[in-house]
Amino acid sequence: MPDLGALLWPRTVALVGASADAENLRGRILHVMKGHAFDCRLYPVSRSSGEVMGLKAYPSIADLPEAADLAVIIIPAKHVPEELERCGKAGVKSAVVLSSGFAEASGDAGAGMQAEIRAIAKRYDMAVMGPNSEGFANTANKLCPTFSPAMEAGARPLLPPGCPRGQLAVMAQSGGIGFAFFDHGRAKELSFRYIVTTGNEACLEALDFADFILEEGKTDALLLLLEDVKSPDTFRRVAEKALRAGKPLIVNKIGQSQAGVRAAASHTAALAGEYAAYQAMFQRYGLIEGRDLGEMVDIAAGFLAWGARLPLGRRVGICTASGGGGGWMADACTAAGLEVPELDGDTRRRIDEHLPAYGTSQNPVDATAQAAAKIGYAGLAGLVVPSPAVDGIIVVMTARNPHNLERQKEALARLAAETPKPILMWSYTLPAPRSVEILSEVGYPLYTGLQTCARTMRAMADYRALRERFLRPIEVRSTFVPDRAAAGAALAAADAVLCEWEARPILARYGIGSNPVGRLASSADAAVAAAQTIGGAVALKVQSPDILHKTEAGAVALGLASAQDVRGAYARVLASARQHVPGARILGVLVQPMAPPGREVILGVKRDATFGPLLMVGLGGIEVEVLKDVALAPVPLAPGEARELLARLKGAALLEAHRGKPPADVDALVELMVRLSHFAADHADAIAEIDLNPVLVHEQGKGASVVDALIVKAQIPRKGGGHAT
Amino acid sequence: MPDLGALLWPRTVALVGASADAENLRGRILHVMKGHAFDCRLYPVSRSSGEVMGLKAYPSIADLPEAADLAVIIIPAKHVPEELERCGKAGVKSAVVLSSGFAEASGDAGAGMQAEIRAIAKRYDMAVMGPNSEGFANTANKLCPTFSPAMEAGARPLLPPGCPRGQLAVMAQSGGIGFAFFDHGRAKELSFRYIVTTGNEACLEALDFADFILEEGKTDALLLLLEDVKSPDTFRRVAEKALRAGKPLIVNKIGQSQAGVRAAASHTAALAGEYAAYQAMFQRYGLIEGRDLGEMVDIAAGFLAWGARLPLGRRVGICTASGGGGGWMADACTAAGLEVPELDGDTRRRIDEHLPAYGTSQNPVDATAQAAAKIGYAGLAGLVVPSPAVDGIIVVMTARNPHNLERQKEALARLAAETPKPILMWSYTLPAPRSVEILSEVGYPLYTGLQTCARTMRAMADYRALRERFLRPIEVRSTFVPDRAAAGAALAAADAVLCEWEARPILARYGIGSNPVGRLASSADAAVAAAQTIGGAVALKVQSPDILHKTEAGAVALGLASAQDVRGAYARVLASARQHVPGARILGVLVQPMAPPGREVILGVKRDATFGPLLMVGLGGIEVEVLKDVALAPVPLAPGEARELLARLKGAALLEAHRGKPPADVDALVELMVRLSHFAADHADAIAEIDLNPVLVHEQGKGASVVDALIVKAQIPRKGGGHAT
Repeated sequence: MPDLGALLWPRTVALVGASADAENLRGRILHVMKGHAFDCRLYPVSRSSGEVMGLKAYPSIADLPEAADLAVIIIPAKHVPEELERCGKAGVKSAVVLSSGFAEASGDAGAGMQAEIRAIAKRYDMAVMGPNSEGFANTANKLCPTFSPAMEAGARPLLPPGCPRGQLAVMAQSGGIGFAFFDHGRAKELSFRYIVTTGNEACLEALDFADFILEEGKTDALLLLLEDVKSPDTFRRVAEKALRAGKPLIVNKIGQSQAGVRAAASHTAALAGEYAAYQAMFQRYGLIEGRDLGEMVDIAAGFLAWGARLPLGRRVGICTASGGGGGWMADACTAAGLEVPELDGDTRRRIDEHLPAYGTSQNPVDATAQAAAKIGYAGLAGLVVPSPAVDGIIVVMTARNPHNLERQKEALARLAAETPKPILMWSYTLPAPRSVEILSEVGYPLYTGLQTCARTMRAMADYRALRERFLRPIEVRSTFVPDRAAAGAALAAADAVLCEWEARPILARYGIGSNPVGRLASSADAAVAAAQTIGGAVALKVQSPDILHKTEAGAVALGLASAQDVRGAYARVLASARQHVPGARILGVLVQPMAPPGREVILGVKRDATFGPLLMVGLGGIEVEVLKDVALAPVPLAPGEARELLARLKGAALLEAHRGKPPADVDALVELMVRLSHFAADHADAIAEIDLNPVLVHEQGKGASVVDALIVKAQIPRKGGGHAT
Repeated sequence: MPDLGALLWPRTVALVGASADAENLRGRILHVMKGHAFDCRLYPVSRSSGEVMGLKAYPSIADLPEAADLAVIIIPAKHVPEELERCGKAGVKSAVVLSSGFAEASGDAGAGMQAEIRAIAKRYDMAVMGPNSEGFANTANKLCPTFSPAMEAGARPLLPPGCPRGQLAVMAQSGGIGFAFFDHGRAKELSFRYIVTTGNEACLEALDFADFILEEGKTDALLLLLEDVKSPDTFRRVAEKALRAGKPLIVNKIGQSQAGVRAAASHTAALAGEYAAYQAMFQRYGLIEGRDLGEMVDIAAGFLAWGARLPLGRRVGICTASGGGGGWMADACTAAGLEVPELDGDTRRRIDEHLPAYGTSQNPVDATAQAAAKIGYAGLAGLVVPSPAVDGIIVVMTARNPHNLERQKEALARLAAETPKPILMWSYTLPAPRSVEILSEVGYPLYTGLQTCARTMRAMADYRALRERFLRPIEVRSTFVPDRAAAGAALAAADAVLCEWEARPILARYGIGSNPVGRLASSADAAVAAAQTIGGAVALKVQSPDILHKTEAGAVALGLASAQDVRGAYARVLASARQHVPGARILGVLVQPMAPPGREVILGVKRDATFGPLLMVGLGGIEVEVLKDVALAPVPLAPGEARELLARLKGAALLEAHRGKPPADVDALVELMVRLSHFAADHADAIAEIDLNPVLVHEQGKGASVVDALIVKAQIPRKGGGHAT
């Protein structure tokens, strides 16, 4: 791995393509950089002038008085590869390529040049960011090699003055949005240590920088805007490192609305699009998804302030001087999945001493304007903090008038230092800038949005819970020992699509689908005989690798009780199948006992192009396709993870006891999920899609039946590079 | 109705309780009022001084040189009734009571005084706002009788200077939040005509003011924060007036998370809480729900700018200079239920002429920073406007630098004047205040949140569609003519709870449940005989007004095919019922043919305490209780409204054709909904709850079967008053 330290912390910087003309991007970089007292030696490289903005300029990177740690390159795309080659020869350790016109451009030329960049970087072991990057900022040494207007020197210094605070880092492919995080967050008095915009990511991707920053250990939360993940292994490694360190990754994946895989053979693949795979990975590693720029910054602010005192649960106490504001916040908390429980009697008695008759200590604690003015926000919140009924506190306030907060500053600082529970502030009026400063100085994030305030509390509680589970020792997996080699060999020998009759013996090696399989019949007489041997009502299913959706093809008949029924159905399903898919290869007709009733579940596996196999579970037969109530996770799964996956379904309660109906055999379902997840993990390269649809989960203690199965083998897909602007 | 004009537009104002001490609320009112050059005569009334802040003060309202149009009263609660009486005698036409300590206080004294206020107001036909109001503001005559800090004279005038724009009004019970809308909106250069905070609403409620403001006709959108609705008739009348006039009501109902009715006999009542009733009314009349202060202001800003050119559909064209920003906005639009379709070829060709190779005209149109700088935001948006593929345009931009916008101002103004489609601007960086001004001056709302920008476009499209449907002539209702009188008489004669056997004949008067009812048996022999007469498999159901949930009570047996089965089940269901509810009155056991299969639906009616009977529909048997996928609407319903209600269900597609399964008989379901809605409307006072659960909707053309029915009669509930702070 090349040296990212040379890139982010260079002692010497060459600016290749330097210009004094602040009207173009080339000139703006120098203008932005010089606005801050950066702590390194800067050498402009210019073919046309010997001096740029008062600095001696050099005609070539080769002419510098010393080898640069970092070359910042902004010259026409077509010259970039040769320049980078020159940098390599001159011993330059790293480069940021801001030029555009590479893989993001139409045509092949740009992509070709981008490949050249990758090759040159590799040859010289150079750390290369971009191309099509907007540069970066390192506020600790005040270095801002970027043309982003957000980093121009202005009224505000790069870092909030005064007491040191927790620090943020931003990693984004998009330069415009990357620096916009700084713009939003700096206005909230947040400290940013790095803003890194990685552009097309020809060599280094956002997560490589996250890795460096986590190793450095001086950043407390990371904002991540992803257009794609190029190296899933890096993702897994960095995400796990962040979670172990308790440094939250707050993320948005752009391109959520992109259509998923167009041609999916299985229902699982149709339901599990690209974004669903990202979500599964985010949920696995506790990444926190934000839906808006401001929301992501707000969530980060909560973690910066309270990272060491995250809420132990989802119960919130709300203090307010405005009944309307408190009620609205209670609604927002409930909508965010938080609870607003009534406070305990002791706490209420302590609060009531301070309230007039028209206040209430229930929760929200409505102190009324008069009492709130008398005891102050800190006094009010401090009365709620000790309540055993709540895990965090939200103060509804108005930060319009900074004088009011100035008076309370000391009390607020004391409370922030002492409280074991996080306290968030929501101002229903727009805050004065000085109010934001005061609250930031004493340690409180200030919210102007109800939703983001409540969502932040929820995210903090969930992050703590997920991290604690993650750090717990891994539970013992299923005791079943699969015959991995036999399954692998059978898979290797099979054709591209395995219908139920072909898939079942392979799945059985993993103990999947132990319910009676039935018999394959190739004549009506054989079907009738099979049905008689089986006894009771049977199902007939045409077995063909060319007919994936048997129900639509009319290739299934259920509940056949008599020999006559079986005979009639045999002819019917075959005719229907042949009509539906002319020329289909037909292995025979499977005669199967009818499964006992149970809750319908779909279990499946989909090999995601980026992250590999994911297990999917959904409830409810055809409802799953309409309501799309499914959950995904990377494989393999431990039983506890399988349970959590089930809990994530909106219809999870359908598995519980209901109106006299006993609960479903969730243990059996979990065991099935675990086994399937191991099957998928062990044969990741061989499998594209699996459907067990439906699985019938019987009453508690009665197991689960796999009623149909389908495996689609992988034609190992490859993923291309992305781009950003 | 008393004269609200005297209250909002007084020529003479008495301030009762006036004080020069700006440290207390009494003094702050005068301080706030005098900050603006209000256009009326002001008379302080003070017992203790002859002069207040340079104005001659009077010892009593009776001593004024002329009768005041408006008395602003801020004296201790206990003196308010006598003072109001004095006002009435002195010929004062209206009053705002800012004092607290009435119905919002614990104990009965406050509520008693509030009742006195109501009585006095009625006696003198005085328009009374409050008590516990925070006053109001009328910016047109610069009158701000309030102690809200948000209305203090400051750097900004009450109204944005320059060109006249569309105007907003705010109505809220909560003073703090009411004026916070102004605080947020004024910072976005929006014009507010009125801010009205109604407090406890002893006499006048928020909607009365909305009515006045709609009649006046100078306000283009209304922001409404409701804690409750006191007069549902006023709600209906005002909501319809607003919709007809095309003046959107943007609303939040506080108290959404309140528990619904605790003890509900029917599933419908358990599923349809108080907030659900509000939502049903909002949806009926096109009120737009906002979830956050800022969001409501943002939605209003969209309507103020584009109210006359609302989008004809949900298709959005996005223009951007930042690929990341455009992609993120596309995600936000999709999440908001908008479409981001590829643009048509002609439009793309026109755009492509301006783009470099690394831009794209697909949609989002990513012009790249270079091209965007050259042709400008107006140029870019102007290229997308004519595309037949889109109904509205969102421009992704940065409003950080006002000079940039200043240069484009003329082009932007021209585009705003000419475009037939709305154009919203989202700035990913925080805008300079001057940028907001410039865009406001030329007619564009500026968004800093992705979500609210997208949601505004969606709300505008939905509002237009709903309003156009609403204004269309009413379709002919069901041709079935019910026997209203017979049903009413039977209802009147019935006990409090009607089990299926009792409910069915009454429902049949409205053509509800025409499928075979079966026979009531009071012995096993009778049951067997009934089953034989019916033929085929039957169901047995114990009929008792004391057993509402028969399945849980084991009081139902299904699919009984033989005499032996019927006999055994008869004993079993009766024993089980008697064990479940000892002493239950049992009418007999209903022997019913098994209904043919169909999609399970729950239909119900719930009489909401505020809005009266609402029809509820949900899909999916027990799933409805887990997923709570239900929709409600006020009754009666026209067929088109019933269809829209069905479309609102998340699982609506379950009624469609699916995988070879024919579609459900939606026409039959709609007819059933219409009939039930008329039954509920015709007998609104007599009915508390109705469950038709389940209704089985058969395949298209095969009708629907009502499989169970329950009616709970009303014990006419009354609703108390609310309060606000």
